Amino acid sequence: MSNITRIRQQLSNYKCDAILILNQVNRLFATGFSSSAGCVLITEDNAWFFTDSRYIEAAGNAIKDANVKLVAKDEKIAESVKKIIDENKIASIGFEEVYVSYACKKDWDKKLGIKMVPAHSLINDLRNIKSEFDLDKIIKIQRISEKVFNEILPIISTDMTEKDLAAEIIYRSLKSGVDDKAFDPIVVSGPNSSRPHGVPGNEKIGKGFLTIDFGLKLDGWCSDTTRTLCIGKPDDEMVNIYDTVLSAQEAGIKEVRAGAKGVDIDTAARRIIEDAGYGEYFGHGFGHSLGLEVHESLSASRLSKDTIPAGAVMSAEPGIYLPGKYGVRIEDTLFVTENGSQNITTLPKNLTVL
Amino acid sequence: MSNITRIRQQLSNYKCDAILILNQVNRLFATGFSSSAGCVLITEDNAWFFTDSRYIEAAGNAIKDANVKLVAKDEKIAESVKKIIDENKIASIGFEEVYVSYACKKDWDKKLGIKMVPAHSLINDLRNIKSEFDLDKIIKIQRISEKVFNEILPIISTDMTEKDLAAEIIYRSLKSGVDDKAFDPIVVSGPNSSRPHGVPGNEKIGKGFLTIDFGLKLDGWCSDTTRTLCIGKPDDEMVNIYDTVLSAQEAGIKEVRAGAKGVDIDTAARRIIEDAGYGEYFGHGFGHSLGLEVHESLSASRLSKDTIPAGAVMSAEPGIYLPGKYGVRIEDTLFVTENGSQNITTLPKNLTVL
Repeated sequence: MSNITRIRQQLSNYKCDAILILNQVNRLFATGFSSSAGCVLITEDNAWFFTDSRYIEAAGNAIKDANVKLVAKDEKIAESVKKIIDENKIASIGFEEVYVSYACKKDWDKKLGIKMVPAHSLINDLRNIKSEFDLDKIIKIQRISEKVFNEILPIISTDMTEKDLAAEIIYRSLKSGVDDKAFDPIVVSGPNSSRPHGVPGNEKIGKGFLTIDFGLKLDGWCSDTTRTLCIGKPDDEMVNIYDTVLSAQEAGIKEVRAGAKGVDIDTAARRIIEDAGYGEYFGHGFGHSLGLEVHESLSASRLSKDTIPAGAVMSAEPGIYLPGKYGVRIEDTLFVTENGSQNITTLPKNLTVL
Repeated sequence: MSNITRIRQQLSNYKCDAILILNQVNRLFATGFSSSAGCVLITEDNAWFFTDSRYIEAAGNAIKDANVKLVAKDEKIAESVKKIIDENKIASIGFEEVYVSYACKKDWDKKLGIKMVPAHSLINDLRNIKSEFDLDKIIKIQRISEKVFNEILPIISTDMTEKDLAAEIIYRSLKSGVDDKAFDPIVVSGPNSSRPHGVPGNEKIGKGFLTIDFGLKLDGWCSDTTRTLCIGKPDDEMVNIYDTVLSAQEAGIKEVRAGAKGVDIDTAARRIIEDAGYGEYFGHGFGHSLGLEVHESLSASRLSKDTIPAGAVMSAEPGIYLPGKYGVRIEDTLFVTENGSQNITTLPKNLTVL
């Protein structure tokens, strides 16, 4: 079933005759077509994609389940939408209240003159459930990420800075055909590795733990992968901490299935870390959903109220961070199924010592 | 004068007792401090920067003209702001209606319970006028951009794809110490160069014109530079078109000074291109302001209603694009002064033939 059809089926639940999609990622989700400008209008029995001359030909070829309409400029889009709304007697329209600015909403209010209904969660909830098409795309960018990771492994040395290694990751990713990074690579070594979201520094990569957390993007779809390596022989505590994080990840992954509560997945992993005496050093959640954005709305954390549906794609990334000392995080990406999950990440997880 | 002081002086014009800054770029503008989370509150006689534990120490060291307040989590920021609002008897507060989502505005409405006044243009107008500090930052990233451009010149060959060259630009920029690209590099050759915002392709760089348009970022400040080169000897029409674009750029630059109308600057350049018979092939505007974003709000174009103030930083980038054939664009960055402008870009503009 196409995403436009899936969206259409939800309209009555939001008590609106149509939905107006302005957000770029949501437009891509609805149509499968990527464009920097335009909007999508979907009713119970029709759909329109409005865009400008830069995209009109490609959009016409790519989009089969919506009428593709040319508009002269961005400013004319509201006029074109208004015309369709009048012709189709649309009285209420859903909009993306989390993505659309206050000024933009007021502007559309004035231009359309009909009731605008907050409907962010309509598309958001659908985006949480990946189709086979989506899964294939996520697996594809994950495989490229793993190829890049395997390419940079042999060049890692204490002669390069964290920033150098981050630049190598981006360069080799671009040369491997990805469209972009999904986020700035986190490359942190030695004491810097104790910061879960540390920024690569100008210091040479030190002995000890080196955490690499990077995400790439292809056709809009994101990957997200973390591995912690060790430069030089780890001591007993380091081995213990690494093994604890890995056991915690495995315990969390075991809880993942359709219908599982995010908080329960997090608790299963957290208990292992707490039992090992490091509970206070696991400051973030176990995982988050991802897809067309690297952080989507589902989470598996202490505060999560989410129930994880079949078809969700979730990260599994517990960590232990000893301030001023070092940190370890291991992150895989899971596709949630009725009875468990498929691990999309295939990189080895035993502690790699360089 | 600090930017917080400049903002404070405008509050009465917007009839609000304070302004709430949520946007990341505006926070950086106000405080000079870069952070992914937090907010700034400025009243007639005080200022506060609210952020979480990741930034608290660095913010305390960096920000001298605001009280730096620790908040436990993002969710607690509104509570902390509310406390200050009650203590200071603030009855109305400006907000950034163009940056803040509809849902976010409604949420703050509920949490603060006071009048929220659209005040986007308060900070936007100030950001259009660069200080000496700002100019130094823009010059710094422009110099790095030029170093990178000079580094890639000798490696350009018809053995590499447009994407390869884009990857080299990003890699060498990162190795030169920049924080990020300001936008995806445009690297377009042969017929692809006829698209002003073309995407680098997987085809080998062809003979003929090669347009490189790239921007880099350091400490939040952006550069934006375009040069069109020629691979192999250009024919007479190519030389004529290149010279026309260069003359048009020079004619536009001559019109730039404090008080000039954006439309008049554009017209001066456009007339040269029209007189040469290529008027219909210059489809975009002459230039835009830049700074903490690569496209800021001022423009020099046919539809512009802007008057350009002293202290503005504007691109000067006319072009001619013959569909299916080739295109030429030359882009410098100007600092607008009372009597003219200072050209921040120092790369040569004669046609480079490789």
